[in-house]
Amino acid sequence: MSTLTLALDLMGGDYGPSETVPAAAQALSLLPHLNLLLVGDIEQCRDLLDAFSLSKHPNVSFLHATQSVSMAESPAFALRRLSDSSMRKAIEAVAAGQANACVSAGNTGALMAIAKHVLKVIPGIERPALMSCVPTISGGRSVLLDLGANVNCEAENLRQFAVLGSVVAEAVLGMSRPRIALLNVGAEANKGNIPVRTAAELLATTPGLNYCGYIEGDALFQGAADVIVCDGFVGNIALKTAEGMVRLLSSASHQQMKGWAGWLQSWLTRFFKRRLSHLNPDQYNGASLLGLRGIVIKSHGRAERSAFTNAILQAVVEVERQLPARIAERIDALPLNRR
Amino acid sequence: MSTLTLALDLMGGDYGPSETVPAAAQALSLLPHLNLLLVGDIEQCRDLLDAFSLSKHPNVSFLHATQSVSMAESPAFALRRLSDSSMRKAIEAVAAGQANACVSAGNTGALMAIAKHVLKVIPGIERPALMSCVPTISGGRSVLLDLGANVNCEAENLRQFAVLGSVVAEAVLGMSRPRIALLNVGAEANKGNIPVRTAAELLATTPGLNYCGYIEGDALFQGAADVIVCDGFVGNIALKTAEGMVRLLSSASHQQMKGWAGWLQSWLTRFFKRRLSHLNPDQYNGASLLGLRGIVIKSHGRAERSAFTNAILQAVVEVERQLPARIAERIDALPLNRR
Repeated sequence: MSTLTLALDLMGGDYGPSETVPAAAQALSLLPHLNLLLVGDIEQCRDLLDAFSLSKHPNVSFLHATQSVSMAESPAFALRRLSDSSMRKAIEAVAAGQANACVSAGNTGALMAIAKHVLKVIPGIERPALMSCVPTISGGRSVLLDLGANVNCEAENLRQFAVLGSVVAEAVLGMSRPRIALLNVGAEANKGNIPVRTAAELLATTPGLNYCGYIEGDALFQGAADVIVCDGFVGNIALKTAEGMVRLLSSASHQQMKGWAGWLQSWLTRFFKRRLSHLNPDQYNGASLLGLRGIVIKSHGRAERSAFTNAILQAVVEVERQLPARIAERIDALPLNRR
Repeated sequence: MSTLTLALDLMGGDYGPSETVPAAAQALSLLPHLNLLLVGDIEQCRDLLDAFSLSKHPNVSFLHATQSVSMAESPAFALRRLSDSSMRKAIEAVAAGQANACVSAGNTGALMAIAKHVLKVIPGIERPALMSCVPTISGGRSVLLDLGANVNCEAENLRQFAVLGSVVAEAVLGMSRPRIALLNVGAEANKGNIPVRTAAELLATTPGLNYCGYIEGDALFQGAADVIVCDGFVGNIALKTAEGMVRLLSSASHQQMKGWAGWLQSWLTRFFKRRLSHLNPDQYNGASLLGLRGIVIKSHGRAERSAFTNAILQAVVEVERQLPARIAERIDALPLNRR
């Protein structure tokens, strides 16, 4: 495999092929060197593939899958019973070396369970984490994890997430000595629950990590830290709350006025939207399942084509930066297993 | 005690008397029938009290306290060692019937510990919760709890929070059969951690509660539910994240331009702020410690005078609606203790 190939799960997400197929075409037009392995019910997608000139595209190959994983499916069922699902076959293509990474907008729990089973975790990592590079108000980026892969975490898991996030901050965002913070309910040392307080002690004594303390929810997106660590329950709700606020505030919620006032109103709404555009969740769609021996990108289930394209681009960056190898190297150098 | 009297902790919060004293004056000008018991280091506050014409105000009395609880103090230390703190004496004034409610911008953990010890909880309630009536995009309100009083919760605690929140929705917001939701990482039944999933089962089978299922972070502030229940760790971070977004988006973050462009820019910034004004956290400052045999309102530690005034007004509403009595009545009628 000399060129860069991505396996795309065509069937995942709320919209399935109607958004993933156009996104594939968009990614190919942006990156002509890219190769795509499209995984799903190819017959069902035929008309869309023809419409977007992908059926006979030289950079596109196909892998037929008879099943798909629904959003409500239990991870255990998806793992044990849906062995011919598009999600499973896309991940297996990565394990078999047919693709450098895979991208899916499907069920997060199922993606996590199948990826962990098929690809295995990097030695020293107990649990993979879902990570996103979120925008900051000043135009920068922060690494935020876990975003929902682990709804219960121990302190050691949080420490490992800090290591994973630091490698991303260095390898993907080009930072040196990224500032690590734990998301907590207060800045003082006595605040928070036991896992967070214990993680603070672990992080402060782990060599090679630039741990800077706690930050609160209102400091997210302010660039107060480069790597922000929390358990998956909290991270998922914090990120979705912030995304919900951006969407609410940038939507034209006021009643449409008439005449010149209506013109002014729509102009102001556009101004408003542009001002928020760099915080738009679509811009940074594409969360990474970190800690695996392969690259798996999770797109938001409600992603439309341009957002799904951004998830594809995130996969390309991680392949180019050889993220799993860099994580393995760093984990190997750290005394993480001396608990 | 025939009139309405509130005990104010003058020393709490990041700014102490410099904001609480002006807020007291503002509240008295808004509600001339209100009586205030100002608790703190009265000598230290003398100049401010004179400046705001409160020293000899007919509706104002004073209670001197030699100690104050700092924001970094441990709740246990504040409870056991600071028996002459302004926070403690303000709560004791409620217990003694000298005041109908108290308001403090001080350390949340200490306020919770002292209030629970001095006022006691309503029978049937295991743990009080911190609740706020947050705005929705359409101009309504939702009850959100817990906001940080309990960083670890079991399912039964979450169920009790749902009952507390329902009473507030009915008594304060005037709703009938308020819709109750649990904040979770997904809408499907198999999502979330054990306490949340178990709470969902409990809520669905508790008579008299209108439980409607899970909502995700992006549905907060959309009015998707009237009562939104979560543990204090998650609620604190979700609310602060949302508040941080509103502050970020309404601040003039762009570089100031010159000439007519600068004029247009500042005009647009004002437009932007006005559009967000009903989501401004200051508008709904004043979280209630629910489940106690008395009314305790927690103001945000960073509250300035007008925000602290809103916390005082929240206390007045809860006194008028006799919230603790209504909660006790509801708890008594529910089979909450048959675990």
